Amino acid sequence: MDLLKVRRSERLIDITHYLLERPHTLVPLTFFAKRYESAKSSISEDLGIVRRTFKGRGTGILQTIPGAAGGVRFIPTIAPAEATEFIRAMAIELSDKSRLLPGGYVYLSDLLGQPKVLRAVGRLIATQYAQQQVDAVMTVATKGVPIAQSVSAYLNVPFVIVRRDSKITEGPTVSVNYVSGSSRRVEKMELSKRSLSQNSRVLVVDDFIKGGGTVNGMKSLIEEFDSQLVGITVFAESLFSGKRPISDYTALLAVDQVDDQAKMLHVKAGNYLERTFN
Amino acid sequence: MDLLKVRRSERLIDITHYLLERPHTLVPLTFFAKRYESAKSSISEDLGIVRRTFKGRGTGILQTIPGAAGGVRFIPTIAPAEATEFIRAMAIELSDKSRLLPGGYVYLSDLLGQPKVLRAVGRLIATQYAQQQVDAVMTVATKGVPIAQSVSAYLNVPFVIVRRDSKITEGPTVSVNYVSGSSRRVEKMELSKRSLSQNSRVLVVDDFIKGGGTVNGMKSLIEEFDSQLVGITVFAESLFSGKRPISDYTALLAVDQVDDQAKMLHVKAGNYLERTFN
Repeated sequence: MDLLKVRRSERLIDITHYLLERPHTLVPLTFFAKRYESAKSSISEDLGIVRRTFKGRGTGILQTIPGAAGGVRFIPTIAPAEATEFIRAMAIELSDKSRLLPGGYVYLSDLLGQPKVLRAVGRLIATQYAQQQVDAVMTVATKGVPIAQSVSAYLNVPFVIVRRDSKITEGPTVSVNYVSGSSRRVEKMELSKRSLSQNSRVLVVDDFIKGGGTVNGMKSLIEEFDSQLVGITVFAESLFSGKRPISDYTALLAVDQVDDQAKMLHVKAGNYLERTFN
Repeated sequence: MDLLKVRRSERLIDITHYLLERPHTLVPLTFFAKRYESAKSSISEDLGIVRRTFKGRGTGILQTIPGAAGGVRFIPTIAPAEATEFIRAMAIELSDKSRLLPGGYVYLSDLLGQPKVLRAVGRLIATQYAQQQVDAVMTVATKGVPIAQSVSAYLNVPFVIVRRDSKITEGPTVSVNYVSGSSRRVEKMELSKRSLSQNSRVLVVDDFIKGGGTVNGMKSLIEEFDSQLVGITVFAESLFSGKRPISDYTALLAVDQVDDQAKMLHVKAGNYLERTFN
Protein backbone atom coordinates (compact mmCIF):
# COMPACT_ATOMS: atom_id res chain seq x y z
CA MET A 1 0.00 0.00 0.00
CA ASP A 2 1.27 3.44 -0.86
CA LEU A 3 1.58 5.15 2.51
CA LEU A 4 1.86 8.62 1.01
CA LYS A 5 -1.33 10.66 0.75
CA VAL A 6 -3.51 8.02 2.32
CA ARG A 7 -7.13 8.63 1.41
CA ARG A 8 -9.66 9.61 4.04
CA SER A 9 -11.52 6.30 3.82
CA GLU A 10 -8.38 4.32 4.59
CA ARG A 11 -7.34 6.75 7.29
CA LEU A 12 -10.70 6.37 9.06
CA ILE A 13 -10.40 2.57 9.10
CA ASP A 14 -6.84 2.60 10.36
CA ILE A 15 -7.45 5.34 12.95
CA THR A 16 -10.40 3.34 14.29
CA HIS A 17 -8.28 0.21 14.58
CA TYR A 18 -5.37 2.10 16.09
CA LEU A 19 -7.48 3.77 18.79
CA LEU A 20 -9.46 0.63 19.69
CA GLU A 21 -6.17 -1.19 20.36
CA ARG A 22 -4.93 1.60 22.63
CA PRO A 23 -7.68 2.73 25.00
CA HIS A 24 -6.92 5.51 27.48
CA THR A 25 -3.73 6.41 25.59
CA LEU A 26 -2.99 9.96 24.47
CA VAL A 27 -2.20 9.97 20.75
CA PRO A 28 -0.88 13.27 19.35
CA LEU A 29 -2.44 14.54 16.12
CA THR A 30 1.04 14.78 14.67
CA PHE A 31 1.38 11.01 15.02
CA PHE A 32 -1.52 10.43 12.64
CA ALA A 33 -0.43 13.30 10.37
CA LYS A 34 2.93 11.63 9.93
CA ARG A 35 1.54 8.11 9.66
CA TYR A 36 -0.67 9.13 6.73
CA GLU A 37 1.45 12.00 5.34
CA SER A 38 -1.62 14.18 5.72
CA ALA A 39 -2.27 17.69 6.95
CA LYS A 40 -3.19 18.12 10.60
CA SER A 41 -6.40 19.83 9.51
CA SER A 42 -7.44 16.68 7.61
CA ILE A 43 -6.60 14.47 10.60
CA SER A 44 -8.60 16.77 12.79
CA GLU A 45 -11.63 16.34 10.52
CA ASP A 46 -11.11 12.55 10.50
CA LEU A 47 -11.09 12.49 14.29
CA GLY A 48 -14.29 14.54 14.38
CA ILE A 49 -16.02 11.88 12.26
CA VAL A 50 -14.61 9.09 14.45
CA ARG A 51 -15.77 10.94 17.58
CA ARG A 52 -19.34 11.35 16.29
CA THR A 53 -19.58 7.76 15.10
CA PHE A 54 -18.19 6.31 18.35
CA LYS A 55 -20.63 8.46 20.31
CA GLY A 56 -23.60 7.61 18.12
CA ARG A 57 -22.92 3.87 18.21
CA GLY A 58 -22.08 3.72 21.93
CA THR A 59 -18.49 2.61 21.27
CA GLY A 60 -16.98 5.14 23.62
CA ILE A 61 -15.75 8.69 24.04
CA LEU A 62 -13.00 10.28 21.97
CA GLN A 63 -11.54 12.98 24.21
CA THR A 64 -9.65 15.89 22.72
CA ILE A 65 -6.80 17.33 24.74
CA PRO A 66 -5.87 20.74 23.30
CA GLY A 67 -2.45 22.35 23.19
CA ALA A 68 1.05 21.40 22.14
CA ALA A 69 1.12 18.33 24.38
CA GLY A 70 -2.41 17.43 23.36
CA GLY A 71 -4.04 14.86 21.14
CA VAL A 72 -6.90 12.42 21.39
CA ARG A 73 -7.69 9.69 23.88
CA PHE A 74 -10.20 6.91 23.34
CA ILE A 75 -12.24 5.94 26.41
CA PRO A 76 -14.23 2.74 25.83
CA THR A 77 -17.66 2.84 27.44
CA ILE A 78 -20.91 0.97 27.30
CA ALA A 79 -24.22 2.74 26.85
CA PRO A 80 -26.78 2.35 29.68
CA ALA A 81 -29.24 0.53 27.39
CA GLU A 82 -26.64 -1.99 26.25
CA ALA A 83 -25.42 -2.49 29.84
CA THR A 84 -28.97 -3.04 31.08
CA GLU A 85 -29.69 -5.52 28.31
CA PHE A 86 -26.50 -7.50 28.98
CA ILE A 87 -27.18 -7.70 32.72
CA ARG A 88 -30.80 -8.71 32.10
CA ALA A 89 -29.68 -11.51 29.75
CA MET A 90 -27.01 -12.69 32.21
CA ALA A 91 -29.52 -12.75 35.10
CA ILE A 92 -31.78 -15.05 33.06
CA GLU A 93 -28.85 -17.25 32.07
CA LEU A 94 -27.58 -17.51 35.66
CA SER A 95 -31.03 -18.33 37.01
CA ASP A 96 -30.91 -21.63 35.11
CA LYS A 97 -31.27 -24.36 37.75
CA SER A 98 -28.69 -26.56 36.05
CA ARG A 99 -26.08 -24.07 37.27
CA LEU A 100 -26.84 -24.90 40.89
CA LEU A 101 -24.03 -26.81 42.60
CA PRO A 102 -24.06 -28.51 46.02
CA GLY A 103 -23.64 -25.98 48.82
CA GLY A 104 -25.50 -23.30 46.90
CA TYR A 105 -22.61 -22.43 44.56
CA VAL A 106 -23.40 -21.29 41.04
CA TYR A 107 -21.51 -22.66 38.05
CA LEU A 108 -20.00 -19.73 36.13
CA SER A 109 -16.87 -21.07 34.44
CA ASP A 110 -18.43 -21.53 31.01
CA LEU A 111 -19.60 -17.90 30.88
CA LEU A 112 -16.28 -16.55 32.12
CA GLY A 113 -14.51 -18.42 29.31
CA GLN A 114 -16.55 -16.86 26.51
CA PRO A 115 -14.90 -13.96 24.66
CA LYS A 116 -18.23 -12.22 24.11
CA VAL A 117 -19.20 -12.29 27.79
CA LEU A 118 -15.72 -11.21 28.87
CA ARG A 119 -15.72 -8.29 26.43
CA ALA A 120 -19.01 -7.06 27.84
CA VAL A 121 -17.92 -7.51 31.48
CA GLY A 122 -14.67 -5.69 30.73
CA ARG A 123 -16.48 -2.80 29.07
CA LEU A 124 -19.01 -2.56 31.91
CA ILE A 125 -16.40 -2.36 34.65
CA ALA A 126 -14.10 -0.10 32.62
CA THR A 127 -17.04 2.27 32.10
CA GLN A 128 -17.61 2.52 35.85
CA TYR A 129 -14.00 3.63 36.44
CA ALA A 130 -13.48 5.49 33.13
CA GLN A 131 -13.02 8.87 34.79
CA GLN A 132 -10.80 7.71 37.65
CA GLN A 133 -7.11 7.08 37.67
CA VAL A 134 -6.44 3.35 37.87
CA ASP A 135 -2.84 2.07 37.75
CA ALA A 136 -3.51 -1.65 38.14
CA VAL A 137 -6.34 -4.16 38.33
CA MET A 138 -6.03 -6.78 41.08
CA THR A 139 -7.75 -10.13 41.46
CA VAL A 140 -7.25 -13.47 43.15
CA ALA A 141 -6.44 -16.70 41.28
CA THR A 142 -8.09 -18.41 39.47
CA LYS A 143 -11.65 -17.42 38.68
CA GLY A 144 -11.12 -13.69 38.90
CA VAL A 145 -8.32 -13.69 36.32
CA PRO A 146 -10.45 -13.54 33.14
CA ILE A 147 -12.43 -10.61 34.53
CA ALA A 148 -9.29 -8.75 35.60
CA GLN A 149 -7.70 -9.32 32.22
CA SER A 150 -10.69 -8.01 30.31
CA VAL A 151 -11.01 -4.89 32.49
CA SER A 152 -7.26 -4.38 32.18
CA ALA A 153 -7.51 -4.48 28.38
CA TYR A 154 -10.24 -1.80 28.29
CA LEU A 155 -8.52 0.43 30.87
CA ASN A 156 -5.15 -0.41 29.28
CA VAL A 157 -3.37 -0.92 32.59
CA PRO A 158 -1.66 -4.09 33.90
CA PHE A 159 -3.40 -6.62 36.13
CA VAL A 160 -1.87 -8.50 39.04
CA ILE A 161 -2.86 -11.91 40.39
CA VAL A 162 -2.97 -12.58 44.13
CA ARG A 163 -2.46 -16.25 45.01
CA ARG A 164 -3.53 -18.44 47.89
CA ASP A 165 -0.69 -20.88 47.23
CA SER A 166 2.92 -19.90 47.05
CA LYS A 167 4.62 -20.62 43.74
CA ILE A 168 8.35 -20.72 43.29
CA THR A 169 8.13 -18.91 39.98
CA GLU A 170 6.89 -15.67 41.52
CA GLY A 171 10.02 -14.62 43.38
CA PRO A 172 9.73 -12.76 46.71
CA THR A 173 6.15 -12.12 47.81
CA VAL A 174 4.27 -10.03 50.34
CA SER A 175 1.58 -11.95 52.20
CA VAL A 176 -1.36 -11.15 54.46
CA ASN A 177 -3.68 -13.27 56.54
CA TYR A 178 -7.39 -12.84 56.20
CA VAL A 179 -10.51 -14.38 57.66
CA SER A 180 -12.64 -16.17 55.15
CA GLY A 181 -16.02 -14.53 55.63
CA SER A 182 -18.04 -17.65 54.91
CA SER A 183 -15.97 -20.37 56.64
CA ARG A 184 -14.42 -18.12 59.33
CA ARG A 185 -11.04 -19.78 58.81
CA VAL A 186 -7.84 -17.75 58.81
CA GLU A 187 -6.14 -18.04 55.42
CA LYS A 188 -3.16 -16.53 53.66
CA MET A 189 -2.83 -14.75 50.34
CA GLU A 190 0.22 -13.31 48.68
CA LEU A 191 1.37 -11.18 45.81
CA SER A 192 4.72 -11.12 44.08
CA LYS A 193 6.65 -8.16 45.46
CA ARG A 194 7.68 -6.78 42.10
CA SER A 195 4.27 -7.01 40.50
CA LEU A 196 2.94 -3.78 42.07
CA SER A 197 4.70 -0.45 42.64
CA GLN A 198 4.18 1.70 45.71
CA ASN A 199 1.49 4.38 45.50
CA SER A 200 -0.49 2.53 42.88
CA ARG A 201 -4.20 3.16 42.56
CA VAL A 202 -5.70 -0.32 42.47
CA LEU A 203 -9.08 -1.57 41.25
CA VAL A 204 -10.13 -4.92 42.76
CA VAL A 205 -12.31 -7.28 40.72
CA ASP A 206 -13.46 -10.84 41.32
CA ASP A 207 -15.99 -13.32 40.04
CA PHE A 208 -18.02 -13.75 43.22
CA ILE A 209 -18.38 -12.13 46.60
CA LYS A 210 -19.78 -14.30 49.35
CA GLY A 211 -18.59 -13.43 52.85
CA GLY A 212 -16.26 -10.73 51.52
CA GLY A 213 -13.16 -12.14 53.26
CA THR A 214 -11.14 -12.56 50.08
CA VAL A 215 -11.85 -9.05 48.90
CA ASN A 216 -11.05 -7.74 52.37
CA GLY A 217 -7.72 -9.61 52.20
CA MET A 218 -6.89 -7.89 48.94
CA LYS A 219 -7.68 -4.57 50.61
CA SER A 220 -5.07 -5.35 53.32
CA LEU A 221 -2.59 -6.42 50.67
CA ILE A 222 -3.01 -3.10 48.87
CA GLU A 223 -2.17 -1.33 52.13
CA GLU A 224 0.94 -3.49 52.53
CA PHE A 225 2.06 -2.20 49.14
CA ASP A 226 1.47 1.41 50.31
CA SER A 227 -1.13 1.71 47.61
CA GLN A 228 -4.72 2.89 47.41
CA LEU A 229 -7.94 1.04 46.70
CA VAL A 230 -9.96 2.73 43.95
CA GLY A 231 -12.97 0.43 44.11
CA ILE A 232 -14.25 -3.13 44.20
CA THR A 233 -16.45 -4.62 41.51
CA VAL A 234 -17.51 -8.26 41.28
CA PHE A 235 -19.39 -10.20 38.64
CA ALA A 236 -21.95 -11.51 41.14
CA GLU A 237 -22.74 -11.30 44.82
CA SER A 238 -24.25 -14.26 46.59
CA LEU A 239 -26.71 -14.28 49.45
CA PHE A 240 -24.94 -13.96 52.78
CA SER A 241 -26.64 -14.01 56.14
CA GLY A 242 -23.74 -12.63 58.22
CA LYS A 243 -22.20 -9.16 58.19
CA ARG A 244 -19.61 -8.64 55.44
CA PRO A 245 -16.33 -6.95 56.47
CA ILE A 246 -16.73 -4.63 53.49
CA SER A 247 -19.92 -3.03 52.27
CA ASP A 248 -18.74 -0.62 49.59
CA TYR A 249 -18.59 -2.73 46.47
CA THR A 250 -20.35 -3.01 43.15
CA ALA A 251 -21.90 -6.19 41.76
CA LEU A 252 -23.12 -6.67 38.21
CA LEU A 253 -25.46 -9.42 39.36
CA ALA A 254 -26.95 -10.60 42.62
CA VAL A 255 -28.17 -14.04 43.62
CA ASP A 256 -31.42 -13.41 45.48
CA GLN A 257 -32.73 -16.94 45.95
CA VAL A 258 -30.69 -20.07 46.27
CA ASP A 259 -31.54 -23.46 47.73
CA ASP A 260 -29.73 -26.52 46.43
CA GLN A 261 -32.10 -28.85 48.32
CA ALA A 262 -35.22 -27.37 46.78
CA LYS A 263 -33.42 -26.76 43.45
CA MET A 264 -34.19 -23.08 43.58
CA LEU A 265 -32.00 -20.41 42.04
CA HIS A 266 -32.79 -16.85 41.08
CA VAL A 267 -30.36 -14.14 40.00
CA LYS A 268 -31.23 -10.47 39.50
CA ALA A 269 -29.35 -7.33 38.49
CA GLY A 270 -26.88 -6.10 41.13
CA ASN A 271 -26.20 -2.47 42.07
CA TYR A 272 -23.92 -1.82 39.06
CA LEU A 273 -26.45 0.06 36.93
CA GLU A 274 -27.54 2.51 39.63
CA ARG A 275 -23.94 3.09 40.74
CA THR A 276 -22.61 3.69 37.25
CA PHE A 277 -25.29 5.59 35.41
CA ASN A 278 -26.92 7.72 38.12
CA MET B 1 -27.40 9.93 15.27
CA ASP B 2 -29.66 9.53 12.30
CA LEU B 3 -29.32 5.89 11.40
CA LEU B 4 -30.90 6.34 7.99
CA LYS B 5 -28.59 6.79 5.03
CA VAL B 6 -25.41 6.57 7.05
CA ARG B 7 -22.55 8.16 5.15
CA ARG B 8 -19.62 6.09 3.93
CA SER B 9 -17.16 7.63 6.40
CA GLU B 10 -19.31 6.64 9.36
CA ARG B 11 -20.02 3.22 7.89
CA LEU B 12 -16.30 2.52 7.51
CA ILE B 13 -15.61 3.40 11.14
CA ASP B 14 -18.49 1.33 12.47
CA ILE B 15 -17.80 -1.66 10.16
CA THR B 16 -14.17 -1.65 11.34
CA HIS B 17 -15.23 -1.63 14.98
CA TYR B 18 -17.90 -4.27 14.40
CA LEU B 19 -15.53 -6.67 12.64
CA LEU B 20 -12.66 -6.21 15.10
CA GLU B 21 -14.99 -7.17 17.95
CA ARG B 22 -16.11 -10.34 16.14
CA PRO B 23 -13.13 -12.15 14.63
CA HIS B 24 -13.74 -15.40 12.73
CA THR B 25 -17.47 -14.65 12.56
CA LEU B 26 -19.38 -14.73 9.29
CA VAL B 27 -21.29 -11.47 8.88
CA PRO B 28 -23.77 -11.35 5.96
CA LEU B 29 -23.67 -8.27 3.71
CA THR B 30 -27.38 -7.86 4.35
CA PHE B 31 -26.63 -7.29 8.03
CA PHE B 32 -24.59 -4.17 7.23
CA ALA B 33 -27.01 -3.09 4.49
CA LYS B 34 -29.82 -3.10 7.04
CA ARG B 35 -27.74 -1.56 9.84
CA TYR B 36 -26.91 1.46 7.67
CA GLU B 37 -29.99 1.48 5.43
CA SER B 38 -27.63 1.32 2.50
CA ALA B 39 -27.53 -0.58 -0.77
CA LYS B 40 -25.64 -3.86 -0.81
CA SER B 41 -23.47 -2.48 -3.60
CA SER B 42 -22.33 0.37 -1.35
CA ILE B 43 -21.59 -2.05 1.51
CA SER B 44 -19.66 -4.21 -0.89
CA GLU B 45 -17.49 -1.21 -1.84
CA ASP B 46 -17.02 -0.34 1.86
CA LEU B 47 -15.82 -3.86 2.59
CA GLY B 48 -13.38 -3.66 -0.31
CA ILE B 49 -11.80 -0.57 1.24
CA VAL B 50 -11.70 -2.24 4.67
CA ARG B 51 -10.12 -5.35 3.13
CA ARG B 52 -7.36 -3.37 1.39
CA THR B 53 -6.61 -1.26 4.46
CA PHE B 54 -6.50 -4.26 6.81
CA LYS B 55 -4.18 -6.02 4.39
CA GLY B 56 -1.95 -3.02 3.86
CA ARG B 57 -1.61 -2.30 7.57
CA GLY B 58 -1.17 -5.94 8.63
CA THR B 59 -4.37 -5.93 10.68
CA GLY B 60 -5.65 -9.18 9.21
CA ILE B 61 -7.53 -10.79 6.37
CA LEU B 62 -11.11 -9.97 5.39
CA GLN B 63 -12.40 -13.13 3.72
CA THR B 64 -15.33 -12.96 1.34
CA ILE B 65 -17.66 -15.95 1.25
CA PRO B 66 -19.82 -15.73 -1.87
CA GLY B 67 -23.38 -16.90 -2.32
CA ALA B 68 -26.69 -16.56 -0.51
CA ALA B 69 -25.27 -17.88 2.79
CA GLY B 70 -22.12 -15.80 2.32
CA GLY B 71 -20.71 -12.64 3.78
CA VAL B 72 -17.40 -11.52 5.21
CA ARG B 73 -15.21 -12.93 7.94
CA PHE B 74 -12.38 -11.06 9.65
CA ILE B 75 -9.31 -13.17 10.46
CA PRO B 76 -6.87 -11.29 12.72
CA THR B 77 -3.25 -11.98 11.83
CA ILE B 78 0.15 -10.55 12.53
CA ALA B 79 2.60 -9.77 9.74
CA PRO B 80 5.94 -11.66 9.81
CA ALA B 81 7.91 -8.44 10.31
CA GLU B 82 5.80 -7.36 13.29
CA ALA B 83 5.94 -10.88 14.78
CA THR B 84 9.72 -11.02 14.39
CA GLU B 85 10.13 -7.60 15.99
CA PHE B 86 7.92 -8.52 18.97
CA ILE B 87 9.76 -11.79 19.59
CA ARG B 88 13.13 -10.06 19.29
CA ALA B 89 12.07 -7.40 21.83
CA MET B 90 10.71 -10.06 24.21
CA ALA B 91 13.92 -12.10 23.98
CA ILE B 92 15.92 -9.05 25.05
CA GLU B 93 13.48 -8.27 27.85
CA LEU B 94 13.51 -11.86 29.13
CA SER B 95 17.31 -12.05 29.04
CA ASP B 96 17.41 -9.45 31.83
CA LYS B 97 19.26 -11.13 34.71
CA SER B 98 16.92 -9.60 37.29
CA ARG B 99 14.28 -12.05 36.00
CA LEU B 100 16.32 -15.01 37.16
CA LEU B 101 14.76 -16.81 40.13
CA PRO B 102 16.30 -19.53 42.33
CA GLY B 103 16.15 -22.91 40.59
CA GLY B 104 16.59 -21.36 37.17
CA TYR B 105 13.00 -20.13 36.85
CA VAL B 106 12.32 -16.96 34.92
CA TYR B 107 9.98 -14.27 36.25
CA LEU B 108 7.26 -13.62 33.67
CA SER B 109 4.20 -12.48 35.61
CA ASP B 110 4.67 -8.77 34.93
CA LEU B 111 4.78 -9.31 31.17
CA LEU B 112 1.80 -11.65 31.18
CA GLY B 113 -0.22 -8.98 32.98
CA GLN B 114 0.37 -6.26 30.39
CA PRO B 115 -2.45 -5.70 27.88
CA LYS B 116 -0.01 -4.80 25.10
CA VAL B 117 2.05 -7.98 25.51
CA LEU B 118 -1.06 -10.14 25.79
CA ARG B 119 -2.57 -8.62 22.64
CA ALA B 120 0.59 -9.44 20.72
CA VAL B 121 0.85 -12.98 22.12
CA GLY B 122 -2.82 -13.57 21.31
CA ARG B 123 -2.41 -12.33 17.74
CA LEU B 124 0.76 -14.40 17.23
CA ILE B 125 -0.82 -17.66 18.35
CA ALA B 126 -4.14 -16.94 16.61
CA THR B 127 -2.20 -16.34 13.38
CA GLN B 128 -0.55 -19.74 13.64
CA TYR B 129 -3.96 -21.48 13.84
CA ALA B 130 -5.93 -19.02 11.69
CA GLN B 131 -6.67 -21.56 8.97
CA GLN B 132 -7.51 -24.49 11.26
CA GLN B 133 -10.73 -25.29 13.01
CA VAL B 134 -10.35 -24.66 16.73
CA ASP B 135 -13.36 -25.11 19.03
CA ALA B 136 -11.70 -24.35 22.35
CA VAL B 137 -8.42 -23.15 23.84
CA MET B 138 -7.19 -25.11 26.86
CA THR B 139 -4.67 -24.16 29.51
CA VAL B 140 -3.77 -25.00 33.08
CA ALA B 141 -4.28 -22.62 36.03
CA THR B 142 -2.93 -20.05 36.78
CA LYS B 143 -0.15 -18.68 34.61
CA GLY B 144 -1.49 -20.00 31.32
CA VAL B 145 -4.87 -18.29 31.76
CA PRO B 146 -3.96 -14.82 30.38
CA ILE B 147 -2.45 -16.40 27.27
CA ALA B 148 -5.45 -18.66 26.72
CA GLN B 149 -7.82 -15.76 27.14
CA SER B 150 -6.03 -13.57 24.65
CA VAL B 151 -5.82 -16.34 22.03
CA SER B 152 -9.47 -17.12 22.67
CA ALA B 153 -10.41 -13.48 22.02
CA TYR B 154 -8.61 -13.42 18.64
CA LEU B 155 -9.93 -16.84 17.56
CA ASN B 156 -13.31 -15.99 19.11
CA VAL B 157 -13.78 -19.39 20.74
CA PRO B 158 -14.12 -20.21 24.46
CA PHE B 159 -11.19 -21.18 26.67
CA VAL B 160 -11.21 -23.80 29.41
CA ILE B 161 -9.03 -23.92 32.52
CA VAL B 162 -7.59 -27.20 33.77
CA ARG B 163 -6.85 -27.21 37.50
CA ARG B 164 -4.42 -29.04 39.70
CA ASP B 165 -6.62 -28.51 42.77
CA SER B 166 -10.24 -29.49 42.96
CA LYS B 167 -12.65 -26.62 43.56
CA ILE B 168 -16.19 -27.12 44.75
CA THR B 169 -17.47 -24.45 42.40
CA GLU B 170 -16.68 -26.41 39.27
CA GLY B 171 -19.21 -29.21 39.61
CA PRO B 172 -18.36 -32.73 38.39
CA THR B 173 -14.91 -33.04 36.86
CA VAL B 174 -12.89 -35.48 34.77
CA SER B 175 -9.37 -36.01 36.02
CA VAL B 176 -6.17 -37.62 34.76
CA ASN B 177 -2.86 -38.42 36.36
CA TYR B 178 0.32 -37.28 34.76
CA VAL B 179 4.03 -37.48 35.45
CA SER B 180 5.63 -34.13 36.01
CA GLY B 181 8.48 -34.17 33.51
CA SER B 182 10.87 -32.18 35.64
CA SER B 183 10.19 -33.59 39.14
CA ARG B 184 9.07 -37.10 38.00
CA ARG B 185 6.22 -37.01 40.52
CA VAL B 186 2.77 -38.33 39.65
CA GLU B 187 0.24 -35.54 39.84
CA LYS B 188 -3.42 -35.03 39.06
CA MET B 189 -5.21 -32.48 36.93
CA GLU B 190 -8.88 -32.07 36.25
CA LEU B 191 -11.37 -30.23 34.12
CA SER B 192 -15.01 -29.46 34.82
CA LYS B 193 -17.08 -31.99 32.91
CA ARG B 194 -19.41 -29.47 31.38
CA SER B 195 -16.74 -27.07 30.19
CA LEU B 196 -15.84 -29.05 27.06
CA SER B 197 -18.10 -30.90 24.62
CA GLN B 198 -17.18 -34.21 22.99
CA ASN B 199 -15.47 -34.02 19.62
CA SER B 200 -14.02 -30.59 20.24
CA ARG B 201 -10.89 -29.55 18.43
CA VAL B 202 -8.67 -28.17 21.19
CA LEU B 203 -5.65 -25.88 21.08
CA VAL B 204 -3.37 -26.14 24.13
CA VAL B 205 -1.43 -23.08 25.29
CA ASP B 206 0.72 -22.42 28.35
CA ASP B 207 3.25 -19.93 29.64
CA PHE B 208 6.20 -22.28 29.98
CA ILE B 209 7.19 -25.78 28.96
CA LYS B 210 9.89 -27.42 31.01
CA GLY B 211 9.68 -31.22 31.18
CA GLY B 212 6.44 -31.25 29.17
CA GLY B 213 4.50 -33.28 31.76
CA THR B 214 1.75 -30.71 32.23
CA VAL B 215 1.17 -30.35 28.52
CA ASN B 216 1.18 -34.12 28.17
CA GLY B 217 -1.43 -34.31 30.94
CA MET B 218 -3.66 -31.92 29.00
CA LYS B 219 -3.25 -34.16 25.96
CA SER B 220 -4.58 -37.13 27.98
CA LEU B 221 -7.41 -35.00 29.30
CA ILE B 222 -8.42 -34.07 25.75
CA GLU B 223 -8.61 -37.79 24.94
CA GLU B 224 -10.80 -38.36 28.02
CA PHE B 225 -13.20 -35.82 26.55
CA ASP B 226 -13.20 -37.71 23.20
CA SER B 227 -11.74 -34.64 21.64
CA GLN B 228 -8.79 -33.86 19.37
CA LEU B 229 -5.62 -31.91 19.97
CA VAL B 230 -5.06 -29.27 17.27
CA GLY B 231 -1.67 -28.09 18.50
CA ILE B 232 0.42 -26.93 21.42
CA THR B 233 1.96 -23.47 21.63
CA VAL B 234 3.75 -22.03 24.65
CA PHE B 235 5.14 -18.60 25.41
CA ALA B 236 8.59 -19.95 26.27
CA GLU B 237 10.41 -23.24 26.49
CA SER B 238 13.10 -23.75 29.08
CA LEU B 239 16.24 -25.81 28.83
CA PHE B 240 15.59 -29.43 29.67
CA SER B 241 18.22 -32.14 29.80
CA GLY B 242 15.87 -35.15 29.78
CA LYS B 243 13.59 -36.42 27.03
CA ARG B 244 10.24 -34.63 26.86
CA PRO B 245 7.13 -36.85 26.49
CA ILE B 246 5.98 -34.56 23.68
CA SER B 247 8.12 -33.06 20.97
CA ASP B 248 5.60 -31.50 18.62
CA TYR B 249 5.01 -28.05 20.08
CA THR B 250 5.63 -24.44 19.21
CA ALA B 251 7.40 -21.93 21.45
CA LEU B 252 7.52 -18.19 20.87
CA LEU B 253 10.71 -17.96 22.91
CA ALA B 254 13.40 -20.33 24.13
CA VAL B 255 15.69 -20.06 27.12
CA ASP B 256 19.10 -21.15 25.82
CA GLN B 257 21.32 -20.34 28.79
CA VAL B 258 20.33 -20.34 32.41
CA ASP B 259 22.41 -20.60 35.56
CA ASP B 260 21.13 -19.03 38.74
CA GLN B 261 24.45 -19.61 40.52
CA ALA B 262 26.46 -17.79 37.89
CA LYS B 263 23.63 -15.28 37.30
CA MET B 264 23.45 -16.17 33.63
CA LEU B 265 20.30 -15.96 31.56
CA HIS B 266 19.82 -15.80 27.82
CA VAL B 267 16.58 -16.11 25.88
CA LYS B 268 16.29 -16.37 22.09
CA ALA B 269 13.46 -16.72 19.59
CA GLY B 270 11.74 -20.11 19.68
CA ASN B 271 10.51 -22.11 16.68
CA TYR B 272 7.32 -20.03 16.25
CA LEU B 273 8.48 -17.92 13.32
CA GLU B 274 9.73 -20.79 11.17
CA ARG B 275 6.64 -22.88 11.96
CA THR B 276 4.18 -20.11 11.20
CA PHE B 277 5.59 -18.20 8.27
CA ASN B 278 7.43 -20.85 6.24
